[in-house]
Amino acid sequence: MNTADLGLPVDVPSTALFTDQYELTMLQAALKAGTAERRSVFEAFTRRLPEGRRYGVVAGTGRVLDAVENFRFDAAVLDFLRERAIVDEPTLEWLADYRFRGDIWGYPEGEVYFPGSPILRVEGSFAECVLLETVILSILNHDSAIAAAASRMSAAAGSRGLIEMGARRTHELAAVAASRAAYVGGFNSTSDLAAGFRYGIPTVGTSAHAFTLLHDSERDAFTAQVESLGRGTTLLVDTYDVTEAVRLAVEVAGPELGAVRIDSGDLLLVAHRVRQQLDELGAARTKIVVTSDLDEYAIASLAAAPVDAYGVGTQLVTGSGHPTCSMVYKLVARAESADVNAPLVPVAKKSLGAKSSIGGRKWAARRLDRDGVAEAEVIGTGEVPGELADRQLQVELVKGGEVVGREPLDVVRDRHAAARAGLPLSATQLSRGEAVIPTEYL
Amino acid sequence: MNTADLGLPVDVPSTALFTDQYELTMLQAALKAGTAERRSVFEAFTRRLPEGRRYGVVAGTGRVLDAVENFRFDAAVLDFLRERAIVDEPTLEWLADYRFRGDIWGYPEGEVYFPGSPILRVEGSFAECVLLETVILSILNHDSAIAAAASRMSAAAGSRGLIEMGARRTHELAAVAASRAAYVGGFNSTSDLAAGFRYGIPTVGTSAHAFTLLHDSERDAFTAQVESLGRGTTLLVDTYDVTEAVRLAVEVAGPELGAVRIDSGDLLLVAHRVRQQLDELGAARTKIVVTSDLDEYAIASLAAAPVDAYGVGTQLVTGSGHPTCSMVYKLVARAESADVNAPLVPVAKKSLGAKSSIGGRKWAARRLDRDGVAEAEVIGTGEVPGELADRQLQVELVKGGEVVGREPLDVVRDRHAAARAGLPLSATQLSRGEAVIPTEYL
Repeated sequence: MNTADLGLPVDVPSTALFTDQYELTMLQAALKAGTAERRSVFEAFTRRLPEGRRYGVVAGTGRVLDAVENFRFDAAVLDFLRERAIVDEPTLEWLADYRFRGDIWGYPEGEVYFPGSPILRVEGSFAECVLLETVILSILNHDSAIAAAASRMSAAAGSRGLIEMGARRTHELAAVAASRAAYVGGFNSTSDLAAGFRYGIPTVGTSAHAFTLLHDSERDAFTAQVESLGRGTTLLVDTYDVTEAVRLAVEVAGPELGAVRIDSGDLLLVAHRVRQQLDELGAARTKIVVTSDLDEYAIASLAAAPVDAYGVGTQLVTGSGHPTCSMVYKLVARAESADVNAPLVPVAKKSLGAKSSIGGRKWAARRLDRDGVAEAEVIGTGEVPGELADRQLQVELVKGGEVVGREPLDVVRDRHAAARAGLPLSATQLSRGEAVIPTEYL
Repeated sequence: MNTADLGLPVDVPSTALFTDQYELTMLQAALKAGTAERRSVFEAFTRRLPEGRRYGVVAGTGRVLDAVENFRFDAAVLDFLRERAIVDEPTLEWLADYRFRGDIWGYPEGEVYFPGSPILRVEGSFAECVLLETVILSILNHDSAIAAAASRMSAAAGSRGLIEMGARRTHELAAVAASRAAYVGGFNSTSDLAAGFRYGIPTVGTSAHAFTLLHDSERDAFTAQVESLGRGTTLLVDTYDVTEAVRLAVEVAGPELGAVRIDSGDLLLVAHRVRQQLDELGAARTKIVVTSDLDEYAIASLAAAPVDAYGVGTQLVTGSGHPTCSMVYKLVARAESADVNAPLVPVAKKSLGAKSSIGGRKWAARRLDRDGVAEAEVIGTGEVPGELADRQLQVELVKGGEVVGREPLDVVRDRHAAARAGLPLSATQLSRGEAVIPTEYL
């Protein structure tokens, strides 16, 4: 089954209520004031990377496109807004006809980003753009956080397999999005069946300690598993005594045993012992999977251990210390009046402190050095300088309300691998540091 | 509108795929081995609280009941499992008829918990219970993490209002569950319309900086907002100059202005200045809402500031440093055979280290001191001692597959407030420490 067939479009319910109430009250006030139809430009960007991180990963764009397409106010939603008196009748009438008819440009999903990168640019009337703020930020902030953690883990894992198995550690639907983002970031598979169903991500899984405990002996459990799932299965060997379990596993399944899984203890030490034991038992091709509270640092520290694959749960779905990004969605330009030909005026919040931003519709390009390695994220307003024209980062995603930027998840995953490979080598160092390339404003 | 009317049951799709693949492969192997029907007891509990936390908050139980009720394998799901060859035909046939017919007992939602507390106990055949592991843990681990953060924040806020506004910082559906958990933990309202729609939580919201920037002047923006939303609205006063904005806000809305919102700067200092200015302008009843990157520590530090309500986003929905709990779902007892009258045998993983657990079906009670304050969480197997019989913590939630423990969210919210009030006073200290009462095993 191909991810392109299954991935998109998926069954997304109306996304119109994934919205902060103030988006609707602003709409109501702007409709009354005659300013709602002013042509506007909103941009999603982050002012900083999470502390210590060297790059960010754009993820969730495909889900944003689904959300925009499904952002409709049906009767049940309108009734709710009316009963609660959240907005007035003219606003309800306006919402009943709502669909986004504007344009969206953005970094393609899987691309890396830096402070200030205009990851998404949404253009249309103020009214139609402002409504999308909450759901766009929900998706980008969550999915990009998970993808960034996944990318670090996949850099640390090198060519070894990475299994996403964090569903039980996060909200049941956040888990599905997390599997998707992990796949973008370089994971190979997931334990989450819903992620397999919705996005075509390869799913894996064999057994837990409960299965061993259900049976009268470990031998009974291993025999039951091998008889049902075949010799290529993965047997969990740390319910009682690991050495005895490994011996038993090979006795029951033979040297064709697919893998053993270790879920506790000093993984470095245990992996070495188990590898030696497996080799001595003639099971040289039986793989070792480890799965206990791993993060990118633990994965890196196991680089010298005879481990074939890592299963990662908690630290993946919680963004390895950074469960959200700090992306914001800001009005950066708007027309002088509701006239369709009125010129755009750059706007920006001007209060003191860290929350100020730069007005005007932005372009972004990545400047490369002579070896083709990224050396700066260049952001500007107005004309793109000629020497950067072919390295622009934004692509068209929605045109006049129609989604034009949908793509298979494997394309996104490959893009991320390529984008990360195009950064200076220090990008994948796990030590804390600044963004690996500077952001320059032209 | 009453939360009891809206809250439950809600429109939950089939939850059967919010499941790790190994639950299904274990099922297949157990069906073939003839062990699938062994009567079993699974328990959800946590071995430890997040570092430094004094108590945990049970949240998500109501959502678990929805998930269990909707855990069915329809044709689309079965086709997916067949196409991917995840399980064999006899297993697919078994799944087609699946509904949970067992019993669930647990701590009532809103109750506090400690290390080892048997928060949920699921009893039935191994087959029917093991399938529920992933979705039960997803819900409890997510929702309880958010509720714990919310509870700390609400203790710090005292009688002041708390608004949940973190939707944009987490997955769009996790945000809805987070609003619900925040309400359980003591928040008063949410910005998230979907949380209002699904759970009847009061929603609030007026305007963002974009609304001010849309207009030709701050005066135009304030005038537009007041004309549409009334003088009782909340005006955002930090787009340009706070002092000028406050002056203008009272000029436009009059002293009946509902509130001003401050979203940046040194909130302590700015709140004092704004309060003084409002009082001097005769707007003594105009409230002050602050909303910039708050957590429980920031809320506590503003206790002496003239603030009326706090809006909390990122730190709420990310669990204020602990975005997930470490609840596990373990087989603790199972029958000797598939015979319905076969006696139960306690079982437990016996490997070394932190992952061992205690076998046997557990009861739990809270022992109080002479003043009625909690002094220990008492957990045991077998008979409940007479002096603890009236303080047992587990209630019946599902009986023979039928949900019997559903309750309105306001009841849950009140229960949490009472449970927290029954703990030693040091429970709500924000300083890091151990669990505020010990867990004793009888």
